[in-house]
Amino acid sequence: MKKLFNTKDRMPDDMIDGFVAAYPDIVQRGNNPRVVRRTGLRTKQDKVALLIGNGCGHEPIAMGFVGEGLLDANVVGDVFSAPSADLIAEGIEEVCGKAGAVLLISRHEGDVINGNAAAMMAQDDGFDVQPLLMYDDISSAPKGQESDRRGAAGTMFIYKILGAAAESGMNITDLVTLGESVRAQTRTLGAALSPGVSPLTGELMFSLADDEIYIGMGVHGEPGVSRRKVGPVRDLVAYMVEEILNDKPIDANTPTVVLVNGSGGTTMMELLTVYSEVNTLLAGMNINNVSPMIGSFSTTQEMGGFSISLFTPTPAMLEYWQAPHASPHFPTIYSGSGAS
Amino acid sequence: MKKLFNTKDRMPDDMIDGFVAAYPDIVQRGNNPRVVRRTGLRTKQDKVALLIGNGCGHEPIAMGFVGEGLLDANVVGDVFSAPSADLIAEGIEEVCGKAGAVLLISRHEGDVINGNAAAMMAQDDGFDVQPLLMYDDISSAPKGQESDRRGAAGTMFIYKILGAAAESGMNITDLVTLGESVRAQTRTLGAALSPGVSPLTGELMFSLADDEIYIGMGVHGEPGVSRRKVGPVRDLVAYMVEEILNDKPIDANTPTVVLVNGSGGTTMMELLTVYSEVNTLLAGMNINNVSPMIGSFSTTQEMGGFSISLFTPTPAMLEYWQAPHASPHFPTIYSGSGAS
Repeated sequence: MKKLFNTKDRMPDDMIDGFVAAYPDIVQRGNNPRVVRRTGLRTKQDKVALLIGNGCGHEPIAMGFVGEGLLDANVVGDVFSAPSADLIAEGIEEVCGKAGAVLLISRHEGDVINGNAAAMMAQDDGFDVQPLLMYDDISSAPKGQESDRRGAAGTMFIYKILGAAAESGMNITDLVTLGESVRAQTRTLGAALSPGVSPLTGELMFSLADDEIYIGMGVHGEPGVSRRKVGPVRDLVAYMVEEILNDKPIDANTPTVVLVNGSGGTTMMELLTVYSEVNTLLAGMNINNVSPMIGSFSTTQEMGGFSISLFTPTPAMLEYWQAPHASPHFPTIYSGSGAS
Repeated sequence: MKKLFNTKDRMPDDMIDGFVAAYPDIVQRGNNPRVVRRTGLRTKQDKVALLIGNGCGHEPIAMGFVGEGLLDANVVGDVFSAPSADLIAEGIEEVCGKAGAVLLISRHEGDVINGNAAAMMAQDDGFDVQPLLMYDDISSAPKGQESDRRGAAGTMFIYKILGAAAESGMNITDLVTLGESVRAQTRTLGAALSPGVSPLTGELMFSLADDEIYIGMGVHGEPGVSRRKVGPVRDLVAYMVEEILNDKPIDANTPTVVLVNGSGGTTMMELLTVYSEVNTLLAGMNINNVSPMIGSFSTTQEMGGFSISLFTPTPAMLEYWQAPHASPHFPTIYSGSGAS
């Protein structure tokens, strides 16, 4: 396999070694070496702790988002594989103080089972932890069955907003409610152009004809909903934005945050072009496009593709979205409006 | 070609449309639509202007680095093609005030010819502009012929440090001297694993056997210096760091900034693993590893590969490196040391 690694077994740990060595003032290993936590975070801190457990191979999400104003910890599983319930529970107990903890769970089967089990284990040990399911991918279940949907790149809105709110002292009940509201205001749809190589098998993760794009594919190559021929990106984006707005309409003059997320092997030139098309469409509907995020944040190795997320924040949510943070791989969010 | 674009002709402009729409408080189009400049920069400002012209297709470098404390403008050429001298001269004249301007030139033939011609044209028009050649790739010319080398990812140190110094009010003569000193303290070596698709031709940019890595390949697929078999990344990194230190030794206890730059299609997991190996090697030599930068910043489409840059800053240079900035795609530099 033509990837940069030492041995397959060491992939997650070698990566974590590099991460904690690079940013020691921001992140450190926990007592369990698969727990990456904020440096200097007090174990019995007053603030509500915010953490997630997930399989690795999608970086920078979620490990790269640990830091002040964002996540307090990330429990790092093996490649594409949820951490065990025991391991997630260890992570919870390392960072949960008297204010409690919110355990984020991106809705994928293994993550849900192990996350919920971990939360129960920690609760049994006397820790006040609340799980929060995250789902935003409109292709994975129809309208009306939102809670059956998968977590996708739009989960980043929850990370950032709950991270900023927790930092400001919000209590656990209000944080869970806020997270549910952010989730309710977020929709994502993705498109795949080319496969990445699985670090597990060394093989391409799926196949797709030279002239085909797959709409709605999941982050581990889960089947999508439809295939399209490659054509001008304008047509593809128009289709995707229409699908998102059919699922959840947005009124004119509503502040809307656009996230264009690259899957790994898609260039910044392409992502900016996608953003330009989304911006033009929203401007045509007089939707007030603010503080976008463009880049490859939730990835599937070097897979070619992208997703579009639309999020309609309240003023308080927008303030949390734009709040400063100190996290190695989450970008600075600028206040600029896309309306010209 | 399976890339996200409308028409080939529109690629650079559609990308710029997205960029200036996303960050209007930071960047805007100049009078010439291929000039991307800081929003609100005074034409006759007291500060020395800092800019570069380059072919696009390597984003986020250099367009993504326009902003406060970094570049004042980027003149965007066609894909992989230097902007014309006329266009670069327009860019200079848009942002050069009475304090003058430094025109950065990454040493590639077209960029050098057109950049120097543009500087002469602007000087003839009465503008005090000084070109500064940037080169750091040790594979492109032997030791002793440093000024024949190509510009590679290590040029980012010059962008950031001169950007911060210009913002703080440094004059043009001192800026050029500082840039030359940063250049003298920087060395880069790259390795290619897999080709990207050229947006110009739709074809793979080069071919490489399934078990081969090419050392020293340039950012447009220029021939490298040697081929190696794929093996543990530890061995590859040890070889590359040894080559860099043979070219320019670093004494124990010298503060050193590591840049691990991905070529586009290389995952963050791999880049962090590379960084971990570099960090271990430097720690073994008691070299004081500070404020590293890890990510895909100077890219060649979705090419697989990476480069390692080592830079030994003076205390003043390190302060400029770590200084805050407001530029959409240049990351926050944290102060953390890699020594544990």
